[in-house]
Amino acid sequence: MTVKTTTAILSKLRALMKNISYVNEPIHAYIIPTGDAHQSEYVADCDTRRAYISGFTGSAGTAIVTESKAALWTDGRYFLQAEKQLDSNWTLMKTGLKDTPTQAEWLVKELPTEGRVGVDPFLFSVEQWKPLAKELKSNGHSLVQVSQNLVDMVWEDRPPPPNNPLLVLAQEYTGQTWQEKVKRVREKLHSKQATAIAITALDEIAWLFNLRGSDIQYNPVFFSYSVITFDGVYLFIDESKVDKAVTQHLELKGAVNSDGSLSVEIHPYEDMKSFVACLAETCDGKIWISEKSSYALVSLIPKLNRLTSPSPVAAFKAVKNDVEIQGMRRAHIKDAVAVCEFFHWLEKDVSHGTVTEVSAADKLEGFRRQQEDFVSLSFDTISSIGADAAIIHYKPSAESNKPITSDQIYLCDSGAQYRDGTTDITRTVHFGSPTKYEQECFTRVLKGHINLSRTVFPNDVKGHNLDTLARLSLWEAGLDYLHGTGHGVGAFLNVHEGPCGISPRVSLSEIPLEEGMILSDEPGYYEDGKFGVRIESLVLVVKADTQYNFRKKGYLTFEPITLVPIQTKLIDPSLLTEQEIDWLNEYHTRCREVIGAELKKQGKLKVLDWLIRETEQLG
Amino acid sequence: MTVKTTTAILSKLRALMKNISYVNEPIHAYIIPTGDAHQSEYVADCDTRRAYISGFTGSAGTAIVTESKAALWTDGRYFLQAEKQLDSNWTLMKTGLKDTPTQAEWLVKELPTEGRVGVDPFLFSVEQWKPLAKELKSNGHSLVQVSQNLVDMVWEDRPPPPNNPLLVLAQEYTGQTWQEKVKRVREKLHSKQATAIAITALDEIAWLFNLRGSDIQYNPVFFSYSVITFDGVYLFIDESKVDKAVTQHLELKGAVNSDGSLSVEIHPYEDMKSFVACLAETCDGKIWISEKSSYALVSLIPKLNRLTSPSPVAAFKAVKNDVEIQGMRRAHIKDAVAVCEFFHWLEKDVSHGTVTEVSAADKLEGFRRQQEDFVSLSFDTISSIGADAAIIHYKPSAESNKPITSDQIYLCDSGAQYRDGTTDITRTVHFGSPTKYEQECFTRVLKGHINLSRTVFPNDVKGHNLDTLARLSLWEAGLDYLHGTGHGVGAFLNVHEGPCGISPRVSLSEIPLEEGMILSDEPGYYEDGKFGVRIESLVLVVKADTQYNFRKKGYLTFEPITLVPIQTKLIDPSLLTEQEIDWLNEYHTRCREVIGAELKKQGKLKVLDWLIRETEQLG
Repeated sequence: MTVKTTTAILSKLRALMKNISYVNEPIHAYIIPTGDAHQSEYVADCDTRRAYISGFTGSAGTAIVTESKAALWTDGRYFLQAEKQLDSNWTLMKTGLKDTPTQAEWLVKELPTEGRVGVDPFLFSVEQWKPLAKELKSNGHSLVQVSQNLVDMVWEDRPPPPNNPLLVLAQEYTGQTWQEKVKRVREKLHSKQATAIAITALDEIAWLFNLRGSDIQYNPVFFSYSVITFDGVYLFIDESKVDKAVTQHLELKGAVNSDGSLSVEIHPYEDMKSFVACLAETCDGKIWISEKSSYALVSLIPKLNRLTSPSPVAAFKAVKNDVEIQGMRRAHIKDAVAVCEFFHWLEKDVSHGTVTEVSAADKLEGFRRQQEDFVSLSFDTISSIGADAAIIHYKPSAESNKPITSDQIYLCDSGAQYRDGTTDITRTVHFGSPTKYEQECFTRVLKGHINLSRTVFPNDVKGHNLDTLARLSLWEAGLDYLHGTGHGVGAFLNVHEGPCGISPRVSLSEIPLEEGMILSDEPGYYEDGKFGVRIESLVLVVKADTQYNFRKKGYLTFEPITLVPIQTKLIDPSLLTEQEIDWLNEYHTRCREVIGAELKKQGKLKVLDWLIRETEQLG
Repeated sequence: MTVKTTTAILSKLRALMKNISYVNEPIHAYIIPTGDAHQSEYVADCDTRRAYISGFTGSAGTAIVTESKAALWTDGRYFLQAEKQLDSNWTLMKTGLKDTPTQAEWLVKELPTEGRVGVDPFLFSVEQWKPLAKELKSNGHSLVQVSQNLVDMVWEDRPPPPNNPLLVLAQEYTGQTWQEKVKRVREKLHSKQATAIAITALDEIAWLFNLRGSDIQYNPVFFSYSVITFDGVYLFIDESKVDKAVTQHLELKGAVNSDGSLSVEIHPYEDMKSFVACLAETCDGKIWISEKSSYALVSLIPKLNRLTSPSPVAAFKAVKNDVEIQGMRRAHIKDAVAVCEFFHWLEKDVSHGTVTEVSAADKLEGFRRQQEDFVSLSFDTISSIGADAAIIHYKPSAESNKPITSDQIYLCDSGAQYRDGTTDITRTVHFGSPTKYEQECFTRVLKGHINLSRTVFPNDVKGHNLDTLARLSLWEAGLDYLHGTGHGVGAFLNVHEGPCGISPRVSLSEIPLEEGMILSDEPGYYEDGKFGVRIESLVLVVKADTQYNFRKKGYLTFEPITLVPIQTKLIDPSLLTEQEIDWLNEYHTRCREVIGAELKKQGKLKVLDWLIRETEQLG
């Protein structure tokens, strides 16, 4: 991990903050968020402004530059990484710790009287804008839109925006045509008495139109916006992307087909802003837009015409249909084959002393590439030995690269995009003799993983109600981890998707868990400078078969769709209950049956032997 | 439970809704909330407007009357009671069920174009006002203040407001002088850069000034408001309450004492509104007021001068000091003596067939009255046999009264106010042979009670993160209960107090659990028309002694301060884990030791025999 010297860039940025050619009046602070104009969690290279300005490359964080200071907020997953990457111009603000000021509190302390805080309104969602603007205002300051992005102006070698071709996803992968999906959106419009909806999240648009792209690494999405009305379907996209296959798929014959069937109207990507402005002016009814959309777009719609409510597409997308579920299961079987091959290979080669964090990650990618319908990884592989594993989102680099040895814990968090589904799995292993303490920590994490996975809960429960279950055993010993327990996962889409998750934090857009949702179950434990443990499988929300059914609520539970053994060497069985041992043994039996059959089919018999050994019953 | 005929009252109310002498323009709907001008949960007789208009007497609910309809919203604790009490003019809206419209949704459906919805602004908090006003506005309607309370105008025999004498609470009960408390409030004002705070919750004022009253049954509070600035302490109260003891206690010598010590300025209760209006006009700085305060008061303060943030007094009050904790423990020992006496007596007398729900409640009150420093009950005793116990907040009346028999489950939820503390306990017993199913339900409720009670959690956890622990065992079998698991309890104050609780619902004002807080732990299970189970003890948040201490967070757990045996006859031990059995046995050992000693001291040796039998070890 390199430390970038930011002195020169910051001084250029500060000059622009006072230059009234770009800001109406000088601004006293400038906010550089992580997201792009679609509030994407992961962004294209041209949108890595926060990393460019601060040097910190983690996936989450916000930088704020004032006339004399620079501060970066990030969460517990990234404290160690940010400490390593920030130079002395920057102060690290550890979000979630008691004494860390919020961005607003810090600004209020740092700003001069009647301070002006600027931000690119496309990079700030309304839900980010509103509370900050309010708190600044109540302290005599103001939050102002700066249309020209100031970081882009100092960023000389900024990469051009990507413009990769699209992939049409057939119904055997999607289970539903885009026409059917548009119909569902219109039903929602009707029920909310709205006349139009502006869709701005890239994964929602990809899902809605059954199209995939590769504009953002690991995320099969493409730069676009969409607007749906009762008589129009509008897609804002660079026209060069619209090739013959896409034209045919979208039935691009004009605004309305003569036979009354749906068709899509293509507009240039850049026209979204003027289109929404025009729609807001001409349309009598309500325009639905999510609070997660950019302030730039939302503020174009007069309050009385605006329905700010979570996007219905996000909720539709979270519940996988039968075809998507079958695809996800298939992808996970193939992925498990690759991961089993990897651990089998790793175990042998670690003893030769030639494997490093980077070479291991490359090898794993190689195994995945061999599987059918492989598209790409779903995120940077976290391949980490010893203390590196305590950096929750560690990405090995040429400088940090270390050999994988048999005297430390190795943690590998990785995943892939297949045409039939997205995977995300973490396994933590030891190739020598773990200490008693490492075993205790691993076992407590495992207990959390199991207890969340096997819980039964009624239909109206939200993910945040379940987060504690994954922590109980750690808490009992005075241990904890500083990240959420689970996130939604797309079907050949983003590896992190809303609106559901399993976290102690409550999100306003969170909806109850529902049959067909897929989430991760990934408790962990991290000891700075020493080691890290995480056990992650994806789980599908399924109906639970309960003895009773109070008020006909209907009960749910989780079924793991990730089927890779959990290393029993790291377990202290005396800490497990009988029920937990039963769960583990049943899980390993399923791994052996399902993945064993696939290994046999693919002729990987040595890996099969490894699988059989690794799935031996415990107790 | 009687059904009140509301036809005539409703027709009078509807006439007033159109009478422009009282409303500027006719209103199309009128909201009658439960609370008083202080947003109290329980109200004085003169403030039972919602019960008067609808007939429904439960502690929670909102009535809305339109030109042709009348609807009442209440939660799961009261569905059965409301069904019994509402006449055919009313539609019951079951809050929390999927298909129940919110009040706003219902209004939007029922209102004519540009509908006007009226409410007494003193009876509506800002946090109630704001979202409703917004949703009405976005649908073309408006929420309007109706200064004259329309229910009061149709309520001919409305009782006069109470005006009972005050009780000065000595420092041996409070542990802190009111001057020290005012100092803490001023420190908070300073840290939030506010110049004044308006305190409107009755229990906050009672706590702050170390005074108690009896204006509201069971709640030792008195009608008042307070304002604290850096140079003034203002108490708005009927002057007839300020007797010699109160004068001395509050050092009423003038606005500022010559020696610079604190003193209080007394103003008439009715002057609060004009005082706040005047303060808002003359004061440059910020006026702090809670979102739980009435819209009538909050709206007097211009937005730029207003700091709407949860009251610091509520947070102070929730954390009991050592003297308050000692008092609460003492009160619980005395209360346990009374409750043990009661169950010992009940067991004998049930066999004679002469005890009823009402006579049992009276007997229990009699036992409590004998204990030192008894003041009153802390709420209406819930004394319920069989199906009555499924009515979560059942209050036996002359009409509903039933004999207590030995072939049904008996549930008793009761509590008292002592000068040294407030109690709240539920025990569920069977005097004959419970069915296997009743035992299963009871045991699952007990497992929830134990697992919440024994959990260890880090310092920044909120109550809503723990609620699920009390439900897991019920959920596993497809069972659940439709109420929260715990509420804060005052020290000789309201039996329900914020800002902490243990509930699946997330409250914005909720603060993390902290050493010294006292809450209830009361899971239950209710089967309409059959039986009800609830096991409730109060628990004190204490430091936990953990093996490790990750990031020096500090860990907490609960210690039960309610010490009354849990009937083992209702337990199916095969459903309990070893740890749960250990917890129960340790709990019973403590009951036997602590309450046993007190029973001996009070010479109640037959009750002691009963206690020894009821605390026999299990397993």
